[in-house]
Amino acid sequence: MFDPIEALKEFIRHPSVSADPAFKAGMHGARDFIASLLGRIGFEVEVVPTPLHPVILAERKGPDSWPHVIIYGHYDVQPADPLHLWTTPAFEPTVRGDRLYGRGAADNKGPLLTHVAAVARLLERRPDLPLRITFMIEGEEEMGSPSFPAFLDAKAERLKKADFVLLSDTGSPREDQIVITCGLRGLTLFDLEVTGARTDLHSGLHGGVLRNPIQALAEVCATLHDADGRVNVPGFYDDVLEVHPWEREQLARFGQSEAEYREFLGIPAFYTHKGYTPFEATRFLPTLEFNGIGGGYQGEGSKTVIPSKAFVKVSCRLVANQDPEKIRALVYRAITERMPKDVTFRLIEQHNGTPYVVVPPDRANTPADQSPVLARAFRAADAAIGEVFGKPPLYLREGGSVPIIADIKRKLGLDSVMMGLFLPEDNLHAPDESFNLNVMRKGMAASERILETLAAGGRGKA
Amino acid sequence: MFDPIEALKEFIRHPSVSADPAFKAGMHGARDFIASLLGRIGFEVEVVPTPLHPVILAERKGPDSWPHVIIYGHYDVQPADPLHLWTTPAFEPTVRGDRLYGRGAADNKGPLLTHVAAVARLLERRPDLPLRITFMIEGEEEMGSPSFPAFLDAKAERLKKADFVLLSDTGSPREDQIVITCGLRGLTLFDLEVTGARTDLHSGLHGGVLRNPIQALAEVCATLHDADGRVNVPGFYDDVLEVHPWEREQLARFGQSEAEYREFLGIPAFYTHKGYTPFEATRFLPTLEFNGIGGGYQGEGSKTVIPSKAFVKVSCRLVANQDPEKIRALVYRAITERMPKDVTFRLIEQHNGTPYVVVPPDRANTPADQSPVLARAFRAADAAIGEVFGKPPLYLREGGSVPIIADIKRKLGLDSVMMGLFLPEDNLHAPDESFNLNVMRKGMAASERILETLAAGGRGKA
Repeated sequence: MFDPIEALKEFIRHPSVSADPAFKAGMHGARDFIASLLGRIGFEVEVVPTPLHPVILAERKGPDSWPHVIIYGHYDVQPADPLHLWTTPAFEPTVRGDRLYGRGAADNKGPLLTHVAAVARLLERRPDLPLRITFMIEGEEEMGSPSFPAFLDAKAERLKKADFVLLSDTGSPREDQIVITCGLRGLTLFDLEVTGARTDLHSGLHGGVLRNPIQALAEVCATLHDADGRVNVPGFYDDVLEVHPWEREQLARFGQSEAEYREFLGIPAFYTHKGYTPFEATRFLPTLEFNGIGGGYQGEGSKTVIPSKAFVKVSCRLVANQDPEKIRALVYRAITERMPKDVTFRLIEQHNGTPYVVVPPDRANTPADQSPVLARAFRAADAAIGEVFGKPPLYLREGGSVPIIADIKRKLGLDSVMMGLFLPEDNLHAPDESFNLNVMRKGMAASERILETLAAGGRGKA
Repeated sequence: MFDPIEALKEFIRHPSVSADPAFKAGMHGARDFIASLLGRIGFEVEVVPTPLHPVILAERKGPDSWPHVIIYGHYDVQPADPLHLWTTPAFEPTVRGDRLYGRGAADNKGPLLTHVAAVARLLERRPDLPLRITFMIEGEEEMGSPSFPAFLDAKAERLKKADFVLLSDTGSPREDQIVITCGLRGLTLFDLEVTGARTDLHSGLHGGVLRNPIQALAEVCATLHDADGRVNVPGFYDDVLEVHPWEREQLARFGQSEAEYREFLGIPAFYTHKGYTPFEATRFLPTLEFNGIGGGYQGEGSKTVIPSKAFVKVSCRLVANQDPEKIRALVYRAITERMPKDVTFRLIEQHNGTPYVVVPPDRANTPADQSPVLARAFRAADAAIGEVFGKPPLYLREGGSVPIIADIKRKLGLDSVMMGLFLPEDNLHAPDESFNLNVMRKGMAASERILETLAAGGRGKA
């Protein structure tokens, strides 16, 4: 059995930023690391090429009578900039207190290694465990998984015979309150680029005759929300559904106060859609956010220029029943109608869009056709989490998006059990990302119990 | 006599970006180059230290009975980014057609060397010329000349005995129509930085509960202009004066059509203060421009982050009778009142502000106390430009700012004769900056005639 924390450090040291071609070597290193680790614990490993970053498929095979779980994870990470805001370098993992700091520690290298370590320990103890396990580890999650649907198509025949997917790429509010995520927001991403004059201009010689593209960009961006925190795009909320009462009830047990949340964010006041608490807004409502903006001179001192171009990067999070293409078309139309006619602009789609996901857990509203192995998995997870973490899990929708969950459901027909292992203070996608090592240890214990219970249950009806 | 074009190439090869400390060696090289050139043509050269970049003071002394002209220029240049938009590298001067390309070619290395070469040729021909000449060449013009006022104070006793200042750091519309600038816009510069959460956040986990600082920044920036091209800040236009009728008449002879200007800029339509032509707007009206904006992720692909901070760099150009401090206070108040209360912000002054300048040429409205040497200089310039360039100069205000002209007037009591030697297509402050070599040759001839005529006139009343 390998040392899970040392393994995680080694995993983080490979700077696997999928979105930036400069990190090709880091992607290669992270992939090799996890592939050979799985090989060492007895898996048959296949590195499946894609047009961009390969997927690792590692199998523990067995007879059809054994339950079959696919464990999903991703070996790629977000860009680490702004680098100067990290206490220790992003790709030099460092333990401080109960935490391991580094880009990807919590998203998703730590949670993924938690399951790998649980499987390693379980198989060391029970080499004859009647359970089929497939690790499916991709390298494009932080880019919106562009190659993953085609990968699923190519491997569908083999993979769709599995019973369900288990993964930890979602969050929980506290170390003692694990969340099983039963819904994820969808996502659509695009850039808006505005052009004024054909070239950068001297702001003295030409200032006062043309609309600065930064001004035009600001004017259009400023129209996209109203004072009450709503997205100001006609039709944006038309398809949003009411949530189930049991979901509101679960969320009420979330346990963080608004004051605590505000304090954590460090903001003077919330800016939340009227009629929703901040906790409800991030889970039950769509958003339109600006992820980046740029144009003109951004360096030290000043440069009195009227830039030729300015751009903003936009993302919309979507909830159940919202179609990414329809929402993007609505936003494009609003921007096009509102753009001043004395500038030109381009809307640049970043990817196709990710639909929302809803996974019905084994509760009051469970569909009649739910697979018996999935139902047992939910029960096993409920029990294991209750025993290891001290409290049963909460079943909540989450604000984030895991693009592949919708693809897996659509292409393989499989539901996913999403056990949240990262915490709000883990600083995902931000400087000083870290993973709580107590959560890692308990997560390993819970994962081990879930898999052992599943193996004991076989594949038939309970 | 040195080769002026080869000398200009050598001057440009020193990357003297004053605003960026990384270019220290380039500043040093440009300074050494111009100081030793002046030494070689017989000037007594002093390199005067300042807290930042030294000023070069080079004198040709003589008896008090000789007229005394100070020739001003600057050896520093604007930053060259975005570098990828240059056809040939910014600091590798290249001749294409009649133009020499490189950062600083037109602003201000080419025009400055035009006067240095004219002086060299004149003194070679007339070694006993009864004219005192002082070159005063600074290295902080592109940063707003922070050290220059103190330099003027330190050298005031010596410099204020001169008769006037001659310089070429302003523009003309065409190769055959030189402009003598009789007014410059003032300038005030500041940054606005908006902060949302204490750190960058995952836009899925937290999107929908706080105001994105890019959104807040866009919302405030969008309020600062109205649909008619006016700056929407109460009191902004209160001190703007009506212009003299002869100034409108001169401008009407400017010779560029609006269609040509629009074509040159490459914009779909003008966005100009109602009731003013584009040519009037850049000269007679103040502006508020965004010179740069930044925040969040600006790299390849996407990063679904809600940034902690976003900023914009703002400059206001000011016209006669507007006080930079008063205008800045008005803009600060508008921004402060309009900033949403759920974010925090800082206003960061970039420098003290440059007042506007008005220089009365030797025309109808010439003040009675104008110095006889200055009056002769205007007449000499009028005649020399008419002979060399084929048309008498136009006397116009200009949209740009030369911060030191106001300082020279205030601290030394001297007016400036501003002979415009760069053209609109020279791409000042932008990629592919270049200098027209025909203008350089004619400018040398005109400068030589002006100085020779001045020497002939002595110091007394005509």
